[in-house]
Amino acid sequence: MKKEIKKWTTLESRYLIRRPWLTARVDKVQLPNGVVNPEHYVLEYPNWVNVIAITPEGKYVMVRQYRHAMDEVMIELCAGTCEQNEPPLQAAQRELREETGYAGGQWQEIMVIGQNPSICNNITHCFVASGVECVGSQQLDESEDIEVLLMSRDEVLGLLNRNEMLQALMAAPLWKHFALTHREQ
Amino acid sequence: MKKEIKKWTTLESRYLIRRPWLTARVDKVQLPNGVVNPEHYVLEYPNWVNVIAITPEGKYVMVRQYRHAMDEVMIELCAGTCEQNEPPLQAAQRELREETGYAGGQWQEIMVIGQNPSICNNITHCFVASGVECVGSQQLDESEDIEVLLMSRDEVLGLLNRNEMLQALMAAPLWKHFALTHREQ
Repeated sequence: MKKEIKKWTTLESRYLIRRPWLTARVDKVQLPNGVVNPEHYVLEYPNWVNVIAITPEGKYVMVRQYRHAMDEVMIELCAGTCEQNEPPLQAAQRELREETGYAGGQWQEIMVIGQNPSICNNITHCFVASGVECVGSQQLDESEDIEVLLMSRDEVLGLLNRNEMLQALMAAPLWKHFALTHREQ
Repeated sequence: MKKEIKKWTTLESRYLIRRPWLTARVDKVQLPNGVVNPEHYVLEYPNWVNVIAITPEGKYVMVRQYRHAMDEVMIELCAGTCEQNEPPLQAAQRELREETGYAGGQWQEIMVIGQNPSICNNITHCFVASGVECVGSQQLDESEDIEVLLMSRDEVLGLLNRNEMLQALMAAPLWKHFALTHREQ
């Protein structure tokens, strides 16, 4: 079954839309076997960050907000977008402070992950921050409506096991975190 | 910090593009605080499936293919799209047979997950199939160029730990699978 998988060749590329929250292009591509696909869509995004933030008492700092595409209020990790030239760690620390009021602690990158390498070009840097503490109130912009929740490890595992942590970019680092810090579940 | 998080109201909605591989709409939405966002983009997709397929010898059936948005050849789980009205289990079994030539075994759904509940409306059903066997050759269409690989558990964990399994919709069920079948890693 061993065979060489080659890249495609992009014959043409044009943007359909370039707005802050949606940049989409369509590429005309040629496969190694000569087949031409006139429309392969690519979604371009800046890189994203999220963080598994844990207090000294072992509580997970979670956020609850409305998610429009699914039309549901959901509990998630704190997450956000890297500003231009902003290092991922700095972006994650800024987002945690703004969305939750928590800061400090020991930070490490647990995972780098993609939305969908076939159609999305960005990556998400996922962090674990241990020992974060509340240092002030939330600093939300007017389009953000976010409740902060402190949850136990078992409560977060419950969310995951009930498929209520739907966001794959968050479920992946959380499951890795639980796999690496395994105990009877 | 307890507060009630309410849904947004959609004031207007129109499609930017409706093609088989990209359906995007822009919604004009009003937040509970009265703020109006004139452009929240939603990407509509059919539901997807993927499968952690394991042979009786404990080998993981993986696929290697070119992923255009990242411009890289990558190793992934077998995955695909539910045809209209096709049950997810049937779609996953069909995709495994077509992409890899493997079939049979005991199937169970390990996870239901979303791409991004804020901007994508579809979910992915993730399965584990234990005891699959090669029953024939691949049945690829002309736009597919896929190599089948059999990998050990440690090799798959290596991919994950090196951030080479970039696709979040696959990394999440794989990490859950490894968390649930933990041993010294």
